[in-house]
Amino acid sequence: MNTESTEPSPFICGLDASLRIIGGKWKPLILFFLGHGPKRYGELKREVRGVSHKMLIQQLKELEAHGVVLRTDYKEVPPRVDYTLTPFGESLIEAMVPLCGWGERNSEVIEKVISKRKEGASS
Amino acid sequence: MNTESTEPSPFICGLDASLRIIGGKWKPLILFFLGHGPKRYGELKREVRGVSHKMLIQQLKELEAHGVVLRTDYKEVPPRVDYTLTPFGESLIEAMVPLCGWGERNSEVIEKVISKRKEGASS
Repeated sequence: MNTESTEPSPFICGLDASLRIIGGKWKPLILFFLGHGPKRYGELKREVRGVSHKMLIQQLKELEAHGVVLRTDYKEVPPRVDYTLTPFGESLIEAMVPLCGWGERNSEVIEKVISKRKEGASS
Repeated sequence: MNTESTEPSPFICGLDASLRIIGGKWKPLILFFLGHGPKRYGELKREVRGVSHKMLIQQLKELEAHGVVLRTDYKEVPPRVDYTLTPFGESLIEAMVPLCGWGERNSEVIEKVISKRKEGASS
C-alpha cells in the first residue's frame, strides 16, 4: 500500500473498500441468506433473526443502491416483492465464503471466548 | 443450517460467528494491518486512518480478550509494547484475504456507487 500516492484513494485498502459495502451488523447476514437464492421480504425477516423491520428495509435499500441487491416488484395483488443478488453481489458472496467457513469451524471456540469476555466484563 | 436443532447455537450461521469476532468498523482493518507483521501501537494508529486513541485501545483489548491478538509489553524504558496476531488470528486473516481482493478489484466501482448514493441522499 502506498499512502503517499498522488491519486489518493478514499479507501485505506481493499478490505476497507469491501467494508463500505458490507459494513454493519446486518448486511453480511442479509447477503449470506440471499446467497441461497431469491427471497421474499418476510423470509429474510425470519432468517435474519433479531433484525427490526425498519433496519432491514434500510439495509436492503442501501444494498440495492450499491448495486449488490436487486428488488423486484411483481405488481401483483396481494403484493409480491422479492430480493435477489446481482452478479456484483454474487461475486461479493463468493469472497465471503471462507469467512463463513472459518466461523463454522471455530463456532465453539468463538462461543467460549465471547462468553468468557462477557463474564470478565461483568465481574 | 438447521434452525430446529435441539442444541440451539447462539449464532445464526458461520458468518454470524465470524462477525462476533471481527464486527464493527475498525477490527477488520486492525487485523489486516497486523497481518503484515507485529506492530507497535503508534504504527497501528497511523495505519488505521481516522481511528481515535480510545477506540483503537478498546478494539485491541477486545481482540486480545477474544484470543485473536497478543499484546506484548517488553517492560522497557521508554515503554515498548507491540501487538501481533495469535495463530487463531492468523487463521482468521487467511479467511479474510478473498474479501480484501474483492475490494481491491472493485474499488473503482465501489467508489462510484458510494458517491452516487451520497448524492442521491443529499438531493
